Amino acid sequence: MTTAGSRDRATQVKKFLQQHGLQAWIAWRPDELLMLTGYFPFWGASLVIYFADAEPVLFIPTIELPDSLPKSGVRVREYPWGEVKCSDPFGVLVAGVAEELAKAGVKPEKAGMNPSSARISLPMFTGEQIPMAEDFCDKLSAIASVPDAETLAGFAALYQRKSPEEIESIRRANRVANIGLRVFADNAQAGTSETEIASAVESAIYRQIGQDGIFHARGCAMVQSGPNSADAGRFNRSTARKLETGDLVLIELGTCVNGYWSDLTRTIAVGQAKPAAAEILSVVTQAQKIAREAVRPGISAGEIDALARNFITERGFGEYFTHVTGHHVGFRYHDPAFGLVPGEKSLLEPGMLITVEPGVYVPKSGAGARIEDNVLVTDTGYEILSRAGSSAAA
Amino acid sequence: MTTAGSRDRATQVKKFLQQHGLQAWIAWRPDELLMLTGYFPFWGASLVIYFADAEPVLFIPTIELPDSLPKSGVRVREYPWGEVKCSDPFGVLVAGVAEELAKAGVKPEKAGMNPSSARISLPMFTGEQIPMAEDFCDKLSAIASVPDAETLAGFAALYQRKSPEEIESIRRANRVANIGLRVFADNAQAGTSETEIASAVESAIYRQIGQDGIFHARGCAMVQSGPNSADAGRFNRSTARKLETGDLVLIELGTCVNGYWSDLTRTIAVGQAKPAAAEILSVVTQAQKIAREAVRPGISAGEIDALARNFITERGFGEYFTHVTGHHVGFRYHDPAFGLVPGEKSLLEPGMLITVEPGVYVPKSGAGARIEDNVLVTDTGYEILSRAGSSAAA
Repeated sequence: MTTAGSRDRATQVKKFLQQHGLQAWIAWRPDELLMLTGYFPFWGASLVIYFADAEPVLFIPTIELPDSLPKSGVRVREYPWGEVKCSDPFGVLVAGVAEELAKAGVKPEKAGMNPSSARISLPMFTGEQIPMAEDFCDKLSAIASVPDAETLAGFAALYQRKSPEEIESIRRANRVANIGLRVFADNAQAGTSETEIASAVESAIYRQIGQDGIFHARGCAMVQSGPNSADAGRFNRSTARKLETGDLVLIELGTCVNGYWSDLTRTIAVGQAKPAAAEILSVVTQAQKIAREAVRPGISAGEIDALARNFITERGFGEYFTHVTGHHVGFRYHDPAFGLVPGEKSLLEPGMLITVEPGVYVPKSGAGARIEDNVLVTDTGYEILSRAGSSAAA
Repeated sequence: MTTAGSRDRATQVKKFLQQHGLQAWIAWRPDELLMLTGYFPFWGASLVIYFADAEPVLFIPTIELPDSLPKSGVRVREYPWGEVKCSDPFGVLVAGVAEELAKAGVKPEKAGMNPSSARISLPMFTGEQIPMAEDFCDKLSAIASVPDAETLAGFAALYQRKSPEEIESIRRANRVANIGLRVFADNAQAGTSETEIASAVESAIYRQIGQDGIFHARGCAMVQSGPNSADAGRFNRSTARKLETGDLVLIELGTCVNGYWSDLTRTIAVGQAKPAAAEILSVVTQAQKIAREAVRPGISAGEIDALARNFITERGFGEYFTHVTGHHVGFRYHDPAFGLVPGEKSLLEPGMLITVEPGVYVPKSGAGARIEDNVLVTDTGYEILSRAGSSAAA
């Protein structure tokens, strides 16, 4: 048993700040806001100052949707973004941030921020990326600083261990995703096209808004059948191809509910799979079960990868398993920090949530398969959030 | 009549480089790749070196979807992104870029790049933002440089004038969007929920893949009815609210087809609109028609804004028209460069494509309306790409 320390979010963040000698952290990307405060922005033009010793201050545009604002624990300030009468909203925002930092006596070198824009999650408005000013980081650099690589890695590591409240939100995202997966299974019949199935899945997910506290639900469904399934290790998208009896059909499904993500894959046969396809599906199903059932505190990410990869290799398909076995998930489609890749020494800890998703894609057989679950590391073993009711001790 | 110079894309880009003393431009964001070369990436991990005096070189991941690669005019190089066996794909990419620049004799100060990540469009994979390495820009900064603000503004201005080929692609995006708008109109009935309508619209758009050369089609539909329509000037999203007779119901619809965007809004009454709602819809409809029919070469963006804004103000609703009248559109949901805002002096030129979208939102009346079209500036007047068949001389 590893002892991983508190999983309370505020405790984790404040410990991170103290360990790195920081008095505040400034963040504005949607997944950063969600991870730090539980708030999922509509526009993606919000910003939080997370203080080590005081209540966080959250800046939101005057036109922000109020639904997801934290009910307590955060002081909210508005700034005039999106109003035609204000020509420099970001100037107002930066001045407000400077004012709060000065009031708290935080010098630029004690206020950290993340310069990266890699793999940002989308806000509730999904049409394009956050509309920050072109020179926004430059403006902030006068009042905050980009810390060293070790500190930035420490910030990324905050994504790893989810709090009990966060797990509940991700559990709900998985419930919604499973509604989509049932639509997939019900529609995966000969004569139906990939786009018909994928669009029906997304539609079912969108319609969950308004139930169970859900104000935002979006699915990103990609369906590949027959020979197209053999491409699913490279990319996932849907075409107009109609399913045929004997095909494998695969769905890659990213689901965002109130900001929290599920990332699932299922592969099924249309009628009776052709023999080569059936063998691929069988090997992947077994490899994935072996790997997901080995999840427990103290095992390394590389060991989980090896369990899946070795099984697939022993069955003769090693060269067709071309991607990683998994990654962290929850605050975005792919959370940062370590992956389940060959040789990775990082150990799993309670509260970590990982995907387990081996796949085999064989162009000459015209078939590919991947099975992916979201697996929570519990105190004693694992719980598969994506298969309600499933759980087991290590 | 203004004379705007060539609208051929390559001519525009090369002229921009020469005017700013650059020998090359490095770009990797999806909308930049699309604008420069017509190529729409799947993963968003591709990069182009656009030379002033030689064929562009396009770096793509080995796992990239080939569908949208340019058939000619670009030299393609692969790099091993997405392969589990390569631990540093971005190192390989940057080394390849350095090699190409060195071979062409381009020094860092002669190779420009855009540091901004504001308002990036999404690649074909829409689940999250481009997965470039956290330190990607740092790595590039040894071989290329961020030019001055005037040059960066010149790059943004390249989005303004669309080539005839680009217009055809955007025309197709508008055709697909109109399929979605018909689903909206057919479903906007009492008893149907906002999410049911929005999800049906998106579903219809997704199913256009495979027709008319379409390999990617995604709608982002947001429906607001009754009192929710009064929020539509602040944000657009769908709820579980069921439409009622007498409501206004509004759809904001972003549509991306093979990378090119349409941005449309329609507002209709459910049955007979209540008197206050009917007046709002009438005022907006008239204001939008006046503004869109004034579009022609040589008129300023501010004049178009004033035509809509003054009409609405004269009718007593000025304080309820809180946003801009329009923006450029096509390479993304909101293209950069000037907006149709009060006082904007920039002149419209042939080949520019703008939205015209006045709106009035009155909380106390429980009603809001916006009408939005995508209007092309022609040599003599305008063409409404979003209303097939409409056109007129100035």
